[in-house]
Amino acid sequence: MEKIITISRQFGSGGRTVGKMVAEKLEIPYYDKELIEKIAEESGYAKEYISEESEYAPGITGFTYGFLGRGSDGLSNADRIWFAQKKVILELAENGPCVIVGRCADYLLKDREDCLNVFIHASTEFRADRIVSQYGETSVHPEKRLKEKDKKRKLNYKYFTEQEWGKMSNYHLSIDSGKLSIEKAVDIIINAAGGNHE
Amino acid sequence: MEKIITISRQFGSGGRTVGKMVAEKLEIPYYDKELIEKIAEESGYAKEYISEESEYAPGITGFTYGFLGRGSDGLSNADRIWFAQKKVILELAENGPCVIVGRCADYLLKDREDCLNVFIHASTEFRADRIVSQYGETSVHPEKRLKEKDKKRKLNYKYFTEQEWGKMSNYHLSIDSGKLSIEKAVDIIINAAGGNHE
Repeated sequence: MEKIITISRQFGSGGRTVGKMVAEKLEIPYYDKELIEKIAEESGYAKEYISEESEYAPGITGFTYGFLGRGSDGLSNADRIWFAQKKVILELAENGPCVIVGRCADYLLKDREDCLNVFIHASTEFRADRIVSQYGETSVHPEKRLKEKDKKRKLNYKYFTEQEWGKMSNYHLSIDSGKLSIEKAVDIIINAAGGNHE
Repeated sequence: MEKIITISRQFGSGGRTVGKMVAEKLEIPYYDKELIEKIAEESGYAKEYISEESEYAPGITGFTYGFLGRGSDGLSNADRIWFAQKKVILELAENGPCVIVGRCADYLLKDREDCLNVFIHASTEFRADRIVSQYGETSVHPEKRLKEKDKKRKLNYKYFTEQEWGKMSNYHLSIDSGKLSIEKAVDIIINAAGGNHE
């Protein structure tokens, strides 16, 4: 079976839930927020800073990542976090089967043959309903928030990987969770990864 | 289950084989070349003409589709073939469960709730190997031929649907047949469509 499953997802598509359920069913570790702790340990930056800032594309948010933010080694904070993230993700993959959500893991692990890269997407209507009902987001203009979040993910991904986030050819499997349901998406991924036995 | 399965595919990805196998396993009709016959009957144009010309985007191939090709009703040959294609595909879908390969069926049937739209893609290497070994194509620059074929499909799709061919959000399921294999793609589609029982 494919050992490592990476899940990239549009905001509000339920990709995180899908990843968690896949990991539970396959009885393998699930990394999402846990990654931030590990990156914090590795890089020395605060968890909150990593969580908040690393969603943004450097250069977009101004001074934080700009020229003034560079140390004597010529690296920006964003670069240092990126290198720590890379190290953490490569090490986790070495440790054995797991599910990793977000954080450009698909790109970072692209040289591994045993990696299944999945993208979860859904219609704007489905995702707007979901962030209001499930995440408790305000029901005022949820579409705008979806757009903003996905734009940030796209810019961040592009900056570090020079690839296009959400472009079909970068993923082995792309699933519309709105049309097919979260449960069906989980089934399909487990089937694609080779089931829950080696 | 989803009654209608449309398969769009990159040239050489094995999408046609996938579609045929899905139809066989589900014991439902499969429409591919059969569509051309039906469109020929409906439109009055020759099968060979439809098969060859309707792959191109009007305006790209010059006189055939140009102003001079328009009849007294203001329609070009391409327009007439398009209307016949639309009629044929909508009628087939009305007749019951089936698999339809290509011909913008995903777009033409977008208002039906019971339609599963699938896209099959694969790396250039996989597809180049495949068209040489399976289709008996010349092994000189197969990559160039892949590019040309997909470009034609893209332009044709764009002209008639005003949507982007191969854009993830237009499909419910996108599968890399090179990574996952033709057989696994078939399994995944049948699972997504709800299995082979109602």
